[in-house]
Amino acid sequence: MQLGMIGLGRMGANMVQRLLAAGHQCVVYDRDPAAVAALVEHGASGAADIAELCAQLAPPRHVWIMVPASVVDSVIDVLEPQLAAGDAIIDGGNSNYRDDIAHAARLAPAGIHFIDCGTSGGVWGRERGYCLMVGGAAEAVARLEPILADLAPGAGDIPRTAGREGPPRGAELGYLHCGPSGAGHFVKMVHNGIEYALMAAYAEGFNLLRHAGAGRAERATDAETAPLANPEHYQYDIDLAEVAELWRRGSVVSSWLLDLTANALAEDAELGNFSGRVSDSGEGRWTSIAAIETGTPTPLLTTALYERFNSQGEAEFANRILSAMRYQFGGHHEKSA
Amino acid sequence: MQLGMIGLGRMGANMVQRLLAAGHQCVVYDRDPAAVAALVEHGASGAADIAELCAQLAPPRHVWIMVPASVVDSVIDVLEPQLAAGDAIIDGGNSNYRDDIAHAARLAPAGIHFIDCGTSGGVWGRERGYCLMVGGAAEAVARLEPILADLAPGAGDIPRTAGREGPPRGAELGYLHCGPSGAGHFVKMVHNGIEYALMAAYAEGFNLLRHAGAGRAERATDAETAPLANPEHYQYDIDLAEVAELWRRGSVVSSWLLDLTANALAEDAELGNFSGRVSDSGEGRWTSIAAIETGTPTPLLTTALYERFNSQGEAEFANRILSAMRYQFGGHHEKSA
Amino acid sequence: MQLGMIGLGRMGANMVQRLLAAGHQCVVYDRDPAAVAALVEHGASGAADIAELCAQLAPPRHVWIMVPASVVDSVIDVLEPQLAAGDAIIDGGNSNYRDDIAHAARLAPAGIHFIDCGTSGGVWGRERGYCLMVGGAAEAVARLEPILADLAPGAGDIPRTAGREGPPRGAELGYLHCGPSGAGHFVKMVHNGIEYALMAAYAEGFNLLRHAGAGRAERATDAETAPLANPEHYQYDIDLAEVAELWRRGSVVSSWLLDLTANALAEDAELGNFSGRVSDSGEGRWTSIAAIETGTPTPLLTTALYERFNSQGEAEFANRILSAMRYQFGGHHEKSA
Amino acid sequence: MQLGMIGLGRMGANMVQRLLAAGHQCVVYDRDPAAVAALVEHGASGAADIAELCAQLAPPRHVWIMVPASVVDSVIDVLEPQLAAGDAIIDGGNSNYRDDIAHAARLAPAGIHFIDCGTSGGVWGRERGYCLMVGGAAEAVARLEPILADLAPGAGDIPRTAGREGPPRGAELGYLHCGPSGAGHFVKMVHNGIEYALMAAYAEGFNLLRHAGAGRAERATDAETAPLANPEHYQYDIDLAEVAELWRRGSVVSSWLLDLTANALAEDAELGNFSGRVSDSGEGRWTSIAAIETGTPTPLLTTALYERFNSQGEAEFANRILSAMRYQFGGHHEKSA
Repeated sequence: MQLGMIGLGRMGANMVQRLLAAGHQCVVYDRDPAAVAALVEHGASGAADIAELCAQLAPPRHVWIMVPASVVDSVIDVLEPQLAAGDAIIDGGNSNYRDDIAHAARLAPAGIHFIDCGTSGGVWGRERGYCLMVGGAAEAVARLEPILADLAPGAGDIPRTAGREGPPRGAELGYLHCGPSGAGHFVKMVHNGIEYALMAAYAEGFNLLRHAGAGRAERATDAETAPLANPEHYQYDIDLAEVAELWRRGSVVSSWLLDLTANALAEDAELGNFSGRVSDSGEGRWTSIAAIETGTPTPLLTTALYERFNSQGEAEFANRILSAMRYQFGGHHEKSA
Repeated sequence: MQLGMIGLGRMGANMVQRLLAAGHQCVVYDRDPAAVAALVEHGASGAADIAELCAQLAPPRHVWIMVPASVVDSVIDVLEPQLAAGDAIIDGGNSNYRDDIAHAARLAPAGIHFIDCGTSGGVWGRERGYCLMVGGAAEAVARLEPILADLAPGAGDIPRTAGREGPPRGAELGYLHCGPSGAGHFVKMVHNGIEYALMAAYAEGFNLLRHAGAGRAERATDAETAPLANPEHYQYDIDLAEVAELWRRGSVVSSWLLDLTANALAEDAELGNFSGRVSDSGEGRWTSIAAIETGTPTPLLTTALYERFNSQGEAEFANRILSAMRYQFGGHHEKSA
Repeated sequence: MQLGMIGLGRMGANMVQRLLAAGHQCVVYDRDPAAVAALVEHGASGAADIAELCAQLAPPRHVWIMVPASVVDSVIDVLEPQLAAGDAIIDGGNSNYRDDIAHAARLAPAGIHFIDCGTSGGVWGRERGYCLMVGGAAEAVARLEPILADLAPGAGDIPRTAGREGPPRGAELGYLHCGPSGAGHFVKMVHNGIEYALMAAYAEGFNLLRHAGAGRAERATDAETAPLANPEHYQYDIDLAEVAELWRRGSVVSSWLLDLTANALAEDAELGNFSGRVSDSGEGRWTSIAAIETGTPTPLLTTALYERFNSQGEAEFANRILSAMRYQFGGHHEKSA
Repeated sequence: MQLGMIGLGRMGANMVQRLLAAGHQCVVYDRDPAAVAALVEHGASGAADIAELCAQLAPPRHVWIMVPASVVDSVIDVLEPQLAAGDAIIDGGNSNYRDDIAHAARLAPAGIHFIDCGTSGGVWGRERGYCLMVGGAAEAVARLEPILADLAPGAGDIPRTAGREGPPRGAELGYLHCGPSGAGHFVKMVHNGIEYALMAAYAEGFNLLRHAGAGRAERATDAETAPLANPEHYQYDIDLAEVAELWRRGSVVSSWLLDLTANALAEDAELGNFSGRVSDSGEGRWTSIAAIETGTPTPLLTTALYERFNSQGEAEFANRILSAMRYQFGGHHEKSA
C-alpha cells in the first residue's frame, strides 16, 4: 500500500523503514533534507515539500503526520489544500485527543478523513513493532489496515489470554480501532499516564532499596533531625542491578519497564549520566486533566506527574514557604545540605 | 536434596510439588492431615507432627516454613528443640524482615542457621518457578542452592539484559542472596510495595477509560455539582478488555500484571464477581514504614496502600468530618448517591 | 451607592442585607418572587425581571450577579442589551476565571465593564463580612470600592502583620484588586484549592485519633489481614470534641476551619447526620488543572480532590480491578466487610 | 507550686519564665551553665546538676524534662535514683508516645509517676500560652494542674464553641488530660502530622499563585516540553503578600499559620533567606507510621512528609532512574535546567 509520511524524526523514520521492509511504498518529507535523503537510500520516494509529496500519491491518498503536537495545526494548514475528498490524514504523534476532534470537524466538509493514532514503542518499535491505538471513522480506519497491521507487532509469541480462541483477532494483532475521532489518542493518553506511574513505582522502590543502609549514617541529635529508633534495621547494602535482574524472572513485578531498568543498572548502577531532571511531555498532564474533569480519582497517576514537576525545580518556592513558616513559629533555621 | 516443609497451603504445597518433580526428597507437615496426605500421594513423606518431620531428616537438616507471618514464632518454638547445630530453618513466607533479624539472633547460640526467603510467584509459581530473594549467612545459603535453583524459574527464554555475557549467573537464575539476615525479606517487602503501586497505576488508568463517556451523563446545575465545561470531550465507550489485550503487544506498559488484567477482563469486563474491597497483607505497610524511617519519599507506594485502606471503609469518618465542615461554613447538605 | 443584585440564594440575599445595613440602595431580582419579596421587606427595591432591575438603576449602573457558574452566561445574555457604555457587571459567584476573560472580551466592544469577584465567607459572611478577591480594569474596580468596603470585614481586631504601619490599607481592609480580568476568580480558585487540602488535613488527623484504639480489635490470622505487631500501642480512647476544642488555644493548627470542626463535634461527636459523601464544586478541580498546566506540583491539593471523588464512589471500578488482579496472581478472594 | 525544669533551650527557658511570672517556684538545670544563670536572674533557683535540682525540691517532687527526644532516656537514667515514690517526671518534649509507655512501665515499680505532655506553641508560647496535651495516671495529672493551667493560654477571648455553657472547663482552658501514658504525645503527634499538611496546603497554593504568569514564558517546541494550550490564561502577576493578608480577613482559610505566612511574606515576598530545604523532626514520621499500622488512610499527611524528604534531596536517585528509563525506551536525553 502507498503511504505519505511527513516528519522523519526518530519515530517517523523508523516507522517508514518498518513499512518499507514490509513491502509498502512510502513517499517521505521532512524539513531536514538529510532526513529525506537517508530514507530514499532505503527505498522511499523523497519529496521536496508537502505539495510534491501529495502529488506523488495516488488517490485516495493516505498521509501520516509524525511531528510534535504543537506543529500539527500548521502542517494541516499546508496539507489540506493539496488533498481531495476521500483522502485521509493520520496524526500518529502525541497530540491531545481534543485537537483530533477539532481537526476531524474541520476536515469533514472537504470530505477528508482524519484518523488519530496513538503510537507506543519508542526507539524499539522498528524492531518490536508499534502498539497502535486508533480513532476515527470505521471505513477510513479499515482502509488503513494493511499499514496498521505491518506497523504493529502482530500476535507474536506472547502467551494467549485465557478464553481467547481461534485465529488472532482484534487487539491481539497489536492495533485497535478504539472509537470515533480522538479515541485513539485518548487511549494513548491514558497509556502514558499509567506509564508515568509505573515508572515512578519502580523508581521509588529502587530508591528505597538504595536507602537500606541508612542506619549506618551518623545522625545529629538536634531538634531538626528526626531520630532513627532502630538503626540496626537498616544495615543492608543491596545490589540494585542484581535485584532488577532477579525480578525479571517469575516475580509479580516483571515488565518491559523493569527489563529496561535492568539494562540501565547493568550498564551503570550509579546512573551517573543522569542528574534527575525528568521531563514530561503532555500526555501525563492531559491524563490528569481528564481524570479531574470526569471525577475519576487517579492519585498515583497525578502524583507521578507532580514528582516530575518537582524534579524540574518547581516545588522550590513552596519549600521556601515551609522553611519560612517553621522559622516564624519555631525559630527553626534551615539546615544546610 | 532433602527438605522438610512445614505449612502446606497454596504456596507450600505447590513448592513441594515443584521440588518433587525436580527429584528432591520432601518430608512434609501441616496441621491439616488432608494436606499432608495429598502430597504423600505425589511422593512426599508425611509427618504427623514437627518432631516426626525432623526425625525423618538427615543432618544437616533443612526445614522450610511456609506459614502466615503471625504464626512463625510459635512454629520456631516447637522446631528449635528438635534441631541441632548445623541445621537450618528457612522462613519462606511473608515475614517482616525485622523478625528475621531477631530469629537469626535467637537461633545463633544453638548453631542453627536461619535463612529468610522472600518468595514471589503466587499460584503460578509451580509452573513458572518462584522468584526467590534470600537473606542469611553465605555458607548456609550456599548449601541450600540445589533447592533454590529448582524452585526458581531459571534463566528461561527471557531476552538477556544488555552487557551480560557468558553462562547465566547470579540473579539470572531466578534467585539471589541479597545479604545478611533479613535482606531477603527486605527486598521482597519492597517488591510488594512496588507491586501495590503498579496494580494501582493500571487500576486508575482503566477506571479513567471507563469514565471516558462521562459527558453523556446528565448533570445537576446546583452549587454541589462541579460543572463539566466540554461534555463533547467525553463521549467515548472504550472496550477495556480489548485495550488490555492491545497493550500487551509492543507498548511501554506491557507487564505480567497487565497479562493478568487482560485475563480478568476477558472473562468478565464488568468484574462483577468483585465488590472492590481490597485487602493488604503486611508488606505494603512495612515498605512504607521503612520509607518513612529512612527518609525516602515514596508517595505512590504509600498512596496505593492508603487507597486500599480506603476501599476497606477506613476513610469514612474522615469524609463525615468533611461533610460536617461544609455544612458548618456553607450550609451545604450532603447529596445522596 | 446603588447596586443591582441578580440571584438571591443564600449568598446573594445575605450580601444584600449586609449592604442595606450599611446604607446602600439595592435593587434585587431572583427567579423566585418570594426571595425578592423577603428582601423588599428589609428595604430593597424589588424587580420583576432583569430589564426592570436595570431600569431602576441610574447610570453608570452596577449589576452584581450571584448565580451558579453554569448559569452566568445566560444571565449575561439577558443583561447585556439592558446596559450601556460605562455600566458594569460584577460576577461574584464561583465562576471559572477563564470565563471572566471571555466575558470581559465579549462586553468590551459595548463599553461595559466586567468585574470578577471571588467571594469567601459562606453563611457567616453576613455577620463577619466577606473576603473579596477582585479582578478587572482598575478604574471600574475603583468605582465599586464603596460596595466592596462594606461587604468586606474591614481591618477588625485581627492582630496586625509585623511591619505594617499607618492606617490599614489594601488587603487589610478585606478586599483586594488582584489584577486584570479573571485575577479575582483565579485567586479565589486557589483559595478553594487550599481549603480542600486544609479540610482534608484535619479530617485525616481526627480520623487517625479515632483509630487510636485499633489494638483492641480482634484480628484474623490469615494471609488477607495485615498483622499488628504491637497492639499495646493502640489502646487509646480519644475524645475528639475535646481535642478539637483544645487545639483552638495556643496550638500551631488553630484556624477557623478548626473552630467549625469543634462546633460540629461538640454537637455530635459521631457526626451521625453525615454519611461521608463529599461534594466538590468546581474550584478544586480548576485549581488542580491550573497546577498541571503551569507545571506546579500540588500533590496535597489534588489528592484532597481525588479523595472527594473517592467518597462519591468513583474509585469502585479501580478497586474491583485490584481485587481481580489479586485473585489472578494469588487466588485471593475478597474479604467481606 | 514548685517545679524542677531540666533542659533550658528555647522551649524550656520560655516555659520557666511564664511559670515564674505566674508566681510558681522553679528549680532549673541545663548542661549549659549560662542558660541556668540567665533564668536565675529572672528568679529561678539554679542547680549545678540533676542531683542538686532534686535536692532543692520538696516531696512530692515534679521534674519537667524539656530535651531532645533522643536524650530523654539518659536523663531518666540519672534522674530516677534521685527520686522517691510519689514523685513525678513530666516529659514535655517531642518524644514518641511509645517511649512514654515504656518509661511509665519502667518507673512504676519505684512508685514514680510518669506524665507525658505534648507542648505546642513554639517561640510564641511564652506570650500566648502553650497548648498542652497530657497523658498519664489521672491522680498524677490532677496534682500538676496548677502548672498546666498557667502554662496554658486559658479560655482567652476566643469565641466560644456553640453549645458550650457555664464557666470554661476542660479543653477550653488550653490543656487536656487525653488518656493513660502516651495519650498526650499521641495527640501531639497527630497534631504535628496535621500541621505538616496544613503548611504544605498553603505552600502549594502560594506556589501556584506564583506560577500564575507561566503563560508569559517562552516554551521550546520539542518532544521534551509539554505544550501550554492557552498561554493567555496564565498572564497574572499576583502579589502574594497582599493575598496572604487578605485571606486573614473573613476567608475560609484563615488560620494562625496563615498569619505567620503573611508575616514572612510582608518581610520579604521572595523569601530570599530560605533555600527550601525543609527539616522534619519525628512526629510527622510517627503519625504516618501510626496511620499505616492502624489502617487509616492519611494520604495528605504522608505526602506532606514525603515532600519534605524530597526537599532534602532524597528523591534524587529515584529521578535518575526515571531519566534512565526514558533514555532506554525513547532515547530521551535529560534537558538541562
